[in-house]
Amino acid sequence: MQVSRSHSVAERKPKEPVAMGSWTRPTCKCCISRAVQPLVALELIENINIETKQWLMDRIQTEKIVGGAELMVHPGEDDEGNMLLVSASQHVLLRAAELQGLYKLYKDGSIISFSYRDRKNFQNSDNINEFLSLAERQFIILHTLDNIKVVDEKYIPGYPTQTLYPGEAIFNRLRKSKILHTFYPLHDEKMLTDLGNCWHSHRNLRLQPIDSIYRYFGGSVAMYFSFLEYFTCSLMPMATFGTIVVALSMDMIDKCILFSLLNMIWSTVVMELWKRHSFVLSYSWGTMQMNSQFEEPRGDYKGPMGTNPITHRYQPYYPAWKRKVKIWLVSVPILCLFLGFSLSGVFVFFRAEAWIKAYHSENDDCWACALYLPSVLHILYVTSMNVLYKTVAKVLTEWENHRLETSFQNHLTIKVMVFRFVNCFAALFYISFYLQDLELLRKELASLLVLTQIINQLIESLVPYLHKMLIGKGTVLKKTTMENAPEIDKIKSQGQMPTFPGLFDEYMELFVQFGYVSLFSCIYPLTAVLVVVNNIAEIRMDALKLCHLFRKPFISPAANIGVWQTAFEMIGFLSVITNCFLISISPQVEEYCAENNITSKNVLIWTVGVEHALLAIKILLAFSIPDIPQWVKLRIDRVEYQSLQALKHKLAEVDNGHSRVTEEKEKRSDGITMSDSTESSLHASNSQLNLL
Amino acid sequence: MQVSRSHSVAERKPKEPVAMGSWTRPTCKCCISRAVQPLVALELIENINIETKQWLMDRIQTEKIVGGAELMVHPGEDDEGNMLLVSASQHVLLRAAELQGLYKLYKDGSIISFSYRDRKNFQNSDNINEFLSLAERQFIILHTLDNIKVVDEKYIPGYPTQTLYPGEAIFNRLRKSKILHTFYPLHDEKMLTDLGNCWHSHRNLRLQPIDSIYRYFGGSVAMYFSFLEYFTCSLMPMATFGTIVVALSMDMIDKCILFSLLNMIWSTVVMELWKRHSFVLSYSWGTMQMNSQFEEPRGDYKGPMGTNPITHRYQPYYPAWKRKVKIWLVSVPILCLFLGFSLSGVFVFFRAEAWIKAYHSENDDCWACALYLPSVLHILYVTSMNVLYKTVAKVLTEWENHRLETSFQNHLTIKVMVFRFVNCFAALFYISFYLQDLELLRKELASLLVLTQIINQLIESLVPYLHKMLIGKGTVLKKTTMENAPEIDKIKSQGQMPTFPGLFDEYMELFVQFGYVSLFSCIYPLTAVLVVVNNIAEIRMDALKLCHLFRKPFISPAANIGVWQTAFEMIGFLSVITNCFLISISPQVEEYCAENNITSKNVLIWTVGVEHALLAIKILLAFSIPDIPQWVKLRIDRVEYQSLQALKHKLAEVDNGHSRVTEEKEKRSDGITMSDSTESSLHASNSQLNLL
Repeated sequence: MQVSRSHSVAERKPKEPVAMGSWTRPTCKCCISRAVQPLVALELIENINIETKQWLMDRIQTEKIVGGAELMVHPGEDDEGNMLLVSASQHVLLRAAELQGLYKLYKDGSIISFSYRDRKNFQNSDNINEFLSLAERQFIILHTLDNIKVVDEKYIPGYPTQTLYPGEAIFNRLRKSKILHTFYPLHDEKMLTDLGNCWHSHRNLRLQPIDSIYRYFGGSVAMYFSFLEYFTCSLMPMATFGTIVVALSMDMIDKCILFSLLNMIWSTVVMELWKRHSFVLSYSWGTMQMNSQFEEPRGDYKGPMGTNPITHRYQPYYPAWKRKVKIWLVSVPILCLFLGFSLSGVFVFFRAEAWIKAYHSENDDCWACALYLPSVLHILYVTSMNVLYKTVAKVLTEWENHRLETSFQNHLTIKVMVFRFVNCFAALFYISFYLQDLELLRKELASLLVLTQIINQLIESLVPYLHKMLIGKGTVLKKTTMENAPEIDKIKSQGQMPTFPGLFDEYMELFVQFGYVSLFSCIYPLTAVLVVVNNIAEIRMDALKLCHLFRKPFISPAANIGVWQTAFEMIGFLSVITNCFLISISPQVEEYCAENNITSKNVLIWTVGVEHALLAIKILLAFSIPDIPQWVKLRIDRVEYQSLQALKHKLAEVDNGHSRVTEEKEKRSDGITMSDSTESSLHASNSQLNLL
Repeated sequence: MQVSRSHSVAERKPKEPVAMGSWTRPTCKCCISRAVQPLVALELIENINIETKQWLMDRIQTEKIVGGAELMVHPGEDDEGNMLLVSASQHVLLRAAELQGLYKLYKDGSIISFSYRDRKNFQNSDNINEFLSLAERQFIILHTLDNIKVVDEKYIPGYPTQTLYPGEAIFNRLRKSKILHTFYPLHDEKMLTDLGNCWHSHRNLRLQPIDSIYRYFGGSVAMYFSFLEYFTCSLMPMATFGTIVVALSMDMIDKCILFSLLNMIWSTVVMELWKRHSFVLSYSWGTMQMNSQFEEPRGDYKGPMGTNPITHRYQPYYPAWKRKVKIWLVSVPILCLFLGFSLSGVFVFFRAEAWIKAYHSENDDCWACALYLPSVLHILYVTSMNVLYKTVAKVLTEWENHRLETSFQNHLTIKVMVFRFVNCFAALFYISFYLQDLELLRKELASLLVLTQIINQLIESLVPYLHKMLIGKGTVLKKTTMENAPEIDKIKSQGQMPTFPGLFDEYMELFVQFGYVSLFSCIYPLTAVLVVVNNIAEIRMDALKLCHLFRKPFISPAANIGVWQTAFEMIGFLSVITNCFLISISPQVEEYCAENNITSKNVLIWTVGVEHALLAIKILLAFSIPDIPQWVKLRIDRVEYQSLQALKHKLAEVDNGHSRVTEEKEKRSDGITMSDSTESSLHASNSQLNLL
């Protein structure tokens, strides 16, 4: 009866405002009561001022109408403790779900915007743990906390030097001034074990439990794993074909044309179908039509105080044009500079390789292994440039001072993506388009593919393990001091795990893989096989990391993979260009031209013509394949139609019921001046006036 | 006091249901009363059955709740007359405005979705003629009439053979069975004169009164004239530059590179800025955010009876897959066939010209004028193919049996546009890409430009004049029979004008012009000048035609120029390709290459590289220039923010006010089972349970 008791506590709260003081009572033996599941932990600084803690708890608990969040908060093991555990009543969660515009399953099977007033007609709405997933509840709490605003405080209680302005978001401020050390959603051990059993701990290869992942971790994580699985499955045909070609030891370059055509079709179809699949997913999760929220400014957003043009609130305001100036005059040139470094790296690499080869053939005393020196140095250079530029990009994007987290993420992603693309593919483009050496391209592709995958897997798996081992020692030492609070201890140990670094690097890896496969794999048919093997391991590794190595992240209910969809589609377009070109310089075509006396200029003209035509067809396909599957569209239309009908019906009813009563008043108040004579003439000559 | 009296009539209606019979009273001397402005005229067949007419009038007038339209209808001059004049009360119009989701100016200056309940806070809502434009009112009436559905009639009263099904749209059906001859919105002579005075009758060149055009004719017409004006103005710099080049008699081909660059920039910037401008227009008209309506099926939509998957109504239902089969297996091949005709026409033309030239140089007895024969024949061929294919496309699209008018129009537009593009530009592409003869290209372009413009202007201006003259004679004959009803006569004469053929041909003309200018004008700098001169005449001519030569059309409140935006942007992309290529074959580049020993293959590689880079930049620009201007975005965000705040506030109030009252009930009914012991323990050990 966990749930029921939790609700009764929840529902009781607003009814007994007298008892509210007792919520903040400091001592409490039973820290993790079975009654209410703690959802979010706040970790304040070690020696937190009692006054500040009290104020913060107060603001979290008081009613919304006086500026609180109406959440439930628990002060941890004792008065001096720096942990707060936050939860929310069913009532508050459902209200927030309506405000956030969550879409939920209605009794008739359609998925519509949740309405608190109509909650009885939504499926499972009586069981909050079923109705809102763990991730949704935690995200709602995050959002509610983020929305607690300063009412009349002039400074943070207990810290008179930390001044506040009216309407400032308290949580942002506490994080900025380091009073709030960190806060994170809590794991649910039973759910986590269940999820693990049918996910990473499962012995056989099988599809992942995407819906459970959505419920436990939230939208974008589930979207990532779904995409990873989809991408891996979609590579299977290519991998099979590649294996057959290699197994029959057919001449690979001879199969170039066939493979190129396959690549082009594959890269188009895969991303179009994924778009449709992601719409189905987000429709079934109810995140597809969620209305956009007005996000709070990021914690690190700075600026002189000004009036926000949208909310008309007095808050830090940094004009957009200054940001644009920064982007165009600093960030873009620095990106170009780094691109220059990357390109000159490629240039130096090829020069050095040619020079060493020449030197080696002349001087026999030179060590043979020196031949590999340029390649190794180049890969090290590329990897270190990737790391370096990512750091620079983070600093730059931070300095650009974006107001919203989404805008920050988008700008960071685009910056890093452009650089990573050039840095990873420049050498391959140079070999294929300038040197036109297919053999070299094949060697380079194979070594890049194997090396980068090994490096990536090592970094991804080792770093968190090392971190855990190092942190693990620290925790043991602390543990001894508070043996009497095992539950709080568990929660604290969650807080000491490293923060989840986000999905950026994971998507980046897939992006580069997608590039290798669709741009150049016609040269090296085993590409798809290597990628598939890598990804099958990747799925389990990522799942394990997310479940056990990192702190649980706050994940917003995402509707799609965002900017990455565009990025992958761009690769699809590029694949047409590279594949057309690779076909035109393939030995088969060259032979054919030599036999038929076709000049290389004409081959080029044909290549360009075909390429343009294929691009046109690709654009046409992208337009003509509907993004949203027919059945989803139909359901959405049906819901829209019903709500329109309901509105019409309501209007008609109001017309009939009220109009007769209110008409007399309205006639006058509508500002219609009607002279007595007109009125009488109307009565008299009704036949004459009629309608006209 | 026109308006005020009209309202009083309107508002009186629902209050006095007894008087309703009198609305259909047949004789009425004063046909056009000053009290209510007739908005729409319905013309039934000549010998209309009295029973049918009575039934129709009844359905138009009765209340919505019993399936009527609640409009006002006037039976015309006598019982046997076949004219019905329809109008609507302020009340009904405002209700409909809310249902259609019209956006109107609020008291605080923002433009928000109109709400009838809140109407007092909207500017001008007390004066219906100010609040809703003439076009909006007429469109609302059209929409309301279209939505009158069969309730329990089994057949059309008076025509027992014409069976009906429940839920069938009556007006569609009457049109289909030719009982309703035609119906059209009526002109307002005073407004029309005022509009004409500051539009086509104005002596000086000046900007058009776009807002007045919107108010009188409606969204898409105003959008067209605004685009025409914008396009003409944006050509001014190009025209000036072209004139200077010609006036200084500089070598035109020498200026090719400069002109090409100008063209590329121009075609990108022009369409991006237009997109932003059109958003400003549609924002100020309130059509930008209008929610999409569930359109009624087109009149000509046929199919076996079935259940509509969205509305669940029993109505004709034609499965979408059959339509797709028709499109891909018949319409597309026929389009390809016609494209083949068009291309072979080009081929034959060039063969014939070459042959005649050769024949002429050999045989001196051949007439010199025979040299022009191929050109003349080819232009005739192109023109007749255009006309022929348009007819075929109409038949095909009709046969494809589209359910909605918009879908019909889109399919027709795309079909005709693709063909027209190939048919008009094939010769030019052939000359520039295959023959690579810049001199010939210039001659061909000049003759095409001048000839097509002359032909177009002649057709456009002569046909309606001739039609009017022919019809004019017919009307005079009829007029004598009903001299005693001058107002009805005027209305009838409006009905005898030709129907407005839509804006398709007008946009098509602009599309071809845009093609000439942005694709090839570097070869013939006077292109822009000719287009500007043509368009200045075109604006006045189109305005005159629309005001005086055609019946007033029903125009929906459009938010943009629809599919044409995409079409013009496509031309922009093509312009990069053609201009890059024209530069690469320009004499300047050839000279430079000859001097520096660059092979033509390398020139081609460079051209292709630059072209791809420019296309990438263009795509980047299109992404990075925001479609909606900042200030419009800000206002929309502000309105959204306010409504979200209002919702939050309402929820918080409900929480505080009602929650205490309703809580007890909800606690039980929410399905939360709470045992007595739990409850008592909660009271007892409040300190222990606290939140957790």
